[in-house]
Amino acid sequence: MSKTFECIPNFSTSDPKVVKAILEEIRCVRNAHLLDHTFDTHYNRLVASFIGDEDSILHAALNSATKAIALIDMNKHKGQHPRLGAVDVVPFVPIRNATMEDCVELSRAFGRRLAEAQNIPVYLYGEAALRPEAKDIDWVRQGEYEGLHEMIKRPGREPDFGPKKPHPTAGATIVGARRIMVGFNVNLGTPNLEVARRVAAAIHVNKGGLVDVRAMAASIPEKGVTQIGMSIGYFEKTPLYRVLELVKIEAERYGVPIVGAEFCGLVPLQALIDVAKYYLKVEDLEEDSILEIAVQKALEQT
Amino acid sequence: MSKTFECIPNFSTSDPKVVKAILEEIRCVRNAHLLDHTFDTHYNRLVASFIGDEDSILHAALNSATKAIALIDMNKHKGQHPRLGAVDVVPFVPIRNATMEDCVELSRAFGRRLAEAQNIPVYLYGEAALRPEAKDIDWVRQGEYEGLHEMIKRPGREPDFGPKKPHPTAGATIVGARRIMVGFNVNLGTPNLEVARRVAAAIHVNKGGLVDVRAMAASIPEKGVTQIGMSIGYFEKTPLYRVLELVKIEAERYGVPIVGAEFCGLVPLQALIDVAKYYLKVEDLEEDSILEIAVQKALEQT
Repeated sequence: MSKTFECIPNFSTSDPKVVKAILEEIRCVRNAHLLDHTFDTHYNRLVASFIGDEDSILHAALNSATKAIALIDMNKHKGQHPRLGAVDVVPFVPIRNATMEDCVELSRAFGRRLAEAQNIPVYLYGEAALRPEAKDIDWVRQGEYEGLHEMIKRPGREPDFGPKKPHPTAGATIVGARRIMVGFNVNLGTPNLEVARRVAAAIHVNKGGLVDVRAMAASIPEKGVTQIGMSIGYFEKTPLYRVLELVKIEAERYGVPIVGAEFCGLVPLQALIDVAKYYLKVEDLEEDSILEIAVQKALEQT
Repeated sequence: MSKTFECIPNFSTSDPKVVKAILEEIRCVRNAHLLDHTFDTHYNRLVASFIGDEDSILHAALNSATKAIALIDMNKHKGQHPRLGAVDVVPFVPIRNATMEDCVELSRAFGRRLAEAQNIPVYLYGEAALRPEAKDIDWVRQGEYEGLHEMIKRPGREPDFGPKKPHPTAGATIVGARRIMVGFNVNLGTPNLEVARRVAAAIHVNKGGLVDVRAMAASIPEKGVTQIGMSIGYFEKTPLYRVLELVKIEAERYGVPIVGAEFCGLVPLQALIDVAKYYLKVEDLEEDSILEIAVQKALEQT
């Protein structure tokens, strides 16, 4: 059984032509499958998701990163999401028959090859981190692209691969291995970014909020709303309903309602099952309770 | 591509030995796959779900019905769910590469063979009905087992197959074809059956409630609660959250809370997606947004 990995690179662009060119580098790789992509102007960021075996995932990750470094000039980049470079972060996730150790190895191989080929500094984070602080992506991203020139010289902040100075147009890249996580953005019915920042802080793991949940505030002027952009690290332990209800409670302090939400990237089935269980007050509901899943499993036995 | 059908027979028993014997008749048929079964003493009813191709589904349906007719004596049967016989209702549902017409044909073939082999009256309902009133299973079941002897003689109420009198121990069987539907039971935090009946009436399609939703009240004395047992005919048009929220609103009139819920049988994925969309306030969420579904589809292309 071949191993299947997911790669979810984040690129600092929302230019449709650049997006198209980057995605094409993924699509044209044999046995790599683009599952999803989202991009928008307020974050000025493209998040792609693709799967493949070890060779095809490495190939597609390298080719798409190379294209992004060629086309994106970080000196002109503005966006509300913190970022260090054109290819901001490249996580690898084990999907089928693959372990976290496989992903750590794969991500380090990718980081080394990208750094050598593009002469760009690469930091390892998450499960692939070589120093404890770097497990936390927020620590790695401190100072962002604009502060990188200064930060990279500080003791203990040397990149894991590549030169000890930023790439002139692409900054640095953060590479790592992690579990499946859920990207979940909730819109608040206020244009007041200060309110959104306070709500985001109340949710964030490092500021007294929910364990393994990261939250940031952003403004979406064209909709007249603000957004709490969140990543939920252990959706099995901290289900989506708990995150949403806590955002609701914190926003209520300011008389602000939740006016919408969206997933960033794909959502694991178990996360949806946990939502249904909570709101429908159902105790027993599992994957095998779902008709399509039960049918698929039964027919695979035939 | 062979056609796949689902059959969801409802048997009037909750005796574990009888349940086991009936299920064994399904399990031992080659290419028939038992997906799920539930039974409980308050309804005194077993609901099984299995899939298979045309031959195996017919085979498993006939064998399990024959076993139930042999083992169940309706003269001793008590239960809160309305029923006409030992094998109360046998619906067939198209799952893959099968049409409703296939299911109508299959259900009529099953009904004819069961009636002949067991000398039991069989009524066709749903899409397989031969008279308009019989599309509605409530009409077919009027008078229940206890009234069958009298009802079966009335003009226009002749069975579609078999003798014009009840089977002495197994009553009659209702057979038909229908779409996938959702069985959803909600528990009210009151032992007061009259309150539960009023709430059920408020939800039922024939009593001013939601279109294609059938609701009945039952008592669950061991838990000190009552239950609204519902079948939702078009879960895509009338999503589960609307049903649940309406039950909540109607129960609030009597100061009664919802204290739990359960699915009867398997639940279609789309029904869970619609629940998540509503409660999480997400607009865009579809099957392909789910990681496991997207991965499965991508790997099938390889």
